[in-house]
This record gives sequence, C-alpha cells and structure tokens, in this order.
Amino acid sequence: MSAQPDSATRRRRRASHSMEAVIAEAVTLLDEAGEPALTFRALAARLGGGVASIYWYVSSKDELLDKATDHVLAGVVEATQGFTGADDPIDDLRSIAVTLFDTVADRPWLGAYLMRDTGAQPSGLRLYELLGEQVMRLGMNPRDSFHATSAVLGFVIGTAADLGQQPPPEVADGTVSRDEYIAAEADLWRALDPGEYPFMHYIVDEFAGHEDAVQFRAGLDLLLTGLRRQATAGS
Amino acid sequence: MSAQPDSATRRRRRASHSMEAVIAEAVTLLDEAGEPALTFRALAARLGGGVASIYWYVSSKDELLDKATDHVLAGVVEATQGFTGADDPIDDLRSIAVTLFDTVADRPWLGAYLMRDTGAQPSGLRLYELLGEQVMRLGMNPRDSFHATSAVLGFVIGTAADLGQQPPPEVADGTVSRDEYIAAEADLWRALDPGEYPFMHYIVDEFAGHEDAVQFRAGLDLLLTGLRRQATAGS
Repeated sequence: MSAQPDSATRRRRRASHSMEAVIAEAVTLLDEAGEPALTFRALAARLGGGVASIYWYVSSKDELLDKATDHVLAGVVEATQGFTGADDPIDDLRSIAVTLFDTVADRPWLGAYLMRDTGAQPSGLRLYELLGEQVMRLGMNPRDSFHATSAVLGFVIGTAADLGQQPPPEVADGTVSRDEYIAAEADLWRALDPGEYPFMHYIVDEFAGHEDAVQFRAGLDLLLTGLRRQATAGS
Repeated sequence: MSAQPDSATRRRRRASHSMEAVIAEAVTLLDEAGEPALTFRALAARLGGGVASIYWYVSSKDELLDKATDHVLAGVVEATQGFTGADDPIDDLRSIAVTLFDTVADRPWLGAYLMRDTGAQPSGLRLYELLGEQVMRLGMNPRDSFHATSAVLGFVIGTAADLGQQPPPEVADGTVSRDEYIAAEADLWRALDPGEYPFMHYIVDEFAGHEDAVQFRAGLDLLLTGLRRQATAGS
C-alpha cells in the first residue's frame, strides 16, 4: 500500500494539471486504447491525481470526447496554416482534405465524434471555414459554395469514419491483420460466379492490393475535378 | 397474469415464425426505436414467442443487426432493378446512389452496420456489384473503376451515416426539432466575427434553409461530373 502524498505534494500535482494536459492525455489514451478505455479513473491515474482533478475541467465523458476531438482538429488547423495560399484554390482544398483524412484515419475513435457539435468543437468550425475560404476563391454563388464545401468535408469524414468502423472484431483486436483480412475477402470475391459478378472479378486484384489512403485520394480527385468543372462552367 | 398458451398454440406460434418474419420485425423495431431498443426479449414479445424462438434463427445481436441491415439493402437492390438500364451509365449510378441514400438517411441505426462485413451482407455485395457494373460501362481500367465505385459508395454511406449520427441528444430524443436546431446553429454562425469567418457569413442563409437530401445530391453530382470527365479523358 503506498503512502498518502502529503498536502504539499497534492497541491503540486493539482497545479501540474491543466486543461491542456488533461485533454492531451485523453487523446493519447484514446489513440492507444480506443474510446471504451477512456474513463475518468484511468485518465486520473495516468495524470497522477484523483478523479476529482478531472471533474475540475470537464463534467462528463461526452464533454471530454468533444474536447479531445477539438484538440485533434486544432492540430489539423495549425498544420494547414503552413501550406495554404497556393495559386490554385483546388490545390489548397486537396491539401487540407488530405491532412484531415490522414489525421482521422489514424484514429478510429475520432470518426464518431467529428463535427458532432460545432458549438463544442470550435476548431471544427475553423476547419469548415478554412475549406470554405478556398471554395470562395472559385467565385461561385453561396448555394454552390455551401454544397461544395459540405461535400468535400463530408467525403473526408465519411470515408475516414467508415475506415475506422469497418474492421471486424478480429482485425480490431489484432488477431487478424488488415492485410490478411483483405486477402481473405478478395478470395471470397474470386469465388463468386463471374457471370453474376463481372465487376467484382474485374477489380478484385485492385481491391486485394489497395491502400486506403490512395483510394481516398482518387475519390477526392473525382470530387475536386467535378468542382473545378462546376466553377468554370458557372463563371 | 395471462394463461399459458396450450402446446398446440405454442406449436402454431413457433411455426408462424420464419427467418424472414424475425428479421422484418427486427427492422421495424430498429426503425421505431433505434438500436438500443433491439433486444431478443423485446423482439420475441413482438413476435409473440419466447426468446429461444429468436435464437433458433440468429445466435447474437450482432448477427441480427447484420441480417437486418442486409434485409434493408435487399430492398434497395430490388428497387434498383426497375430503373437501371438508362442509356447513360452516370444516370443509373445517380439513381442507385439516391435510392440507397434515401433508405439509409431514414434509418439512423443503419449507418453503423452498413457494409461492415460483406460476408454477412450479401445484398451489400450485390449493391456494390450493381454500382460497379454501371461504372464498367464507362470503359475505364480496373484501378479507376475500383476507385470510382468505392468513391460513390463511400460518399453515399459516409454522408448518410453522418446525418444519422449528427443530431445531438436533444434532437434525437425529440425535445428540439431538426429545424429549431439548424436555426439555433445558424444564429451562432451569424454571431461569429465576419472578418474571421467570411465564408460562414457568405453561406449561412443557405445553411439555415438547407435540406439534407438536396445537399447530398449536389455533392453526388460533383463526384459524378468528375467521374464523367475522367472517363472521357481516359478513353
């Protein structure tokens, strides 16, 4: 049984917590072990304090998840500051979208909370604004600009969230690797009747060797090609 | 306390169950009350039998959810049989995508299970094949065809699933209507500094009056425009 820290130590520990430290540690915990592992008790243990020290900053797990999500999005916003401002707004849109995708795809826990409540996620709002400002440079009317920005954001979040939720239990828990799973699925496709499933047979080798990030970028490029065409046609 | 049914009645009830009836009732229950409401006990009560009569057909809630999802997708596949075969494959792609979107958007429970495991969802596989066969008519190589089909399906599922998960608790439980929620969110946007958020101010009236289905179709059209351009450029 460990000795109780004296009151000076306790004060120091409480002082060493900050909202920033609590949220950053929550993100680390979520990245390592996923959403079910995030409890106030586990978080407090990692920070070296009591559960009460977490309640000082957030009042519920839901609020903690919103703040953790916003923390990650703030990192995306910061990263994009460095590279926006290309001559071609479509290039900027692509850069922001790819950065967001890579960030979300690495974090299966994130998809479910992304943009759930922009009031609680100011960086989500900022990111939407950033994408929208690139779209505005295309000179379209408010309606087309709204639709285009929402489509790009929706494509990124939808694709990334789908990747996060797609792995069946045996992949999520690591007993089957992602590559083994894809290979087994591809074998199922190859066993389908070619007369009934000509498309599956046509693309199965591509599926078997695909990388999620490459697939995402190809889809994003279709969307951006359509957007460029709309902008050109409308002006 | 109700009297126990005699054994003839019990036999009749068991005989009246079928896999089809169990799954159809599960979908109705999910549509009415969402995923948390789906228990074997609740389902058995609605079917007028015991819990064991459900285990006769499915061994877990997970399996039941896969089968319920597949049941809904089978309806989409059936619906699309009637209208595919347009001269323009892009028109067929749009029809299938819109039908799938409308079906998923009506069912917030569905997004999380859609295409999770195509082995357990043969109609999901069939739908992917159907979309892919339209893409094949564009005459692109396997890689571009795989990417395009996945992008269209990903856009539909991602957008619909996002709509399903987006409403905050007060909308989901009906204390705040969807329109009131959108109006309140729009007011938050209008209160943002126009110098820092020029895009939000540019599009806020569009956001305030938007319909999800219209927004989805606009994004889908951008994607399909990009696809047509790719197909034309490559041939």
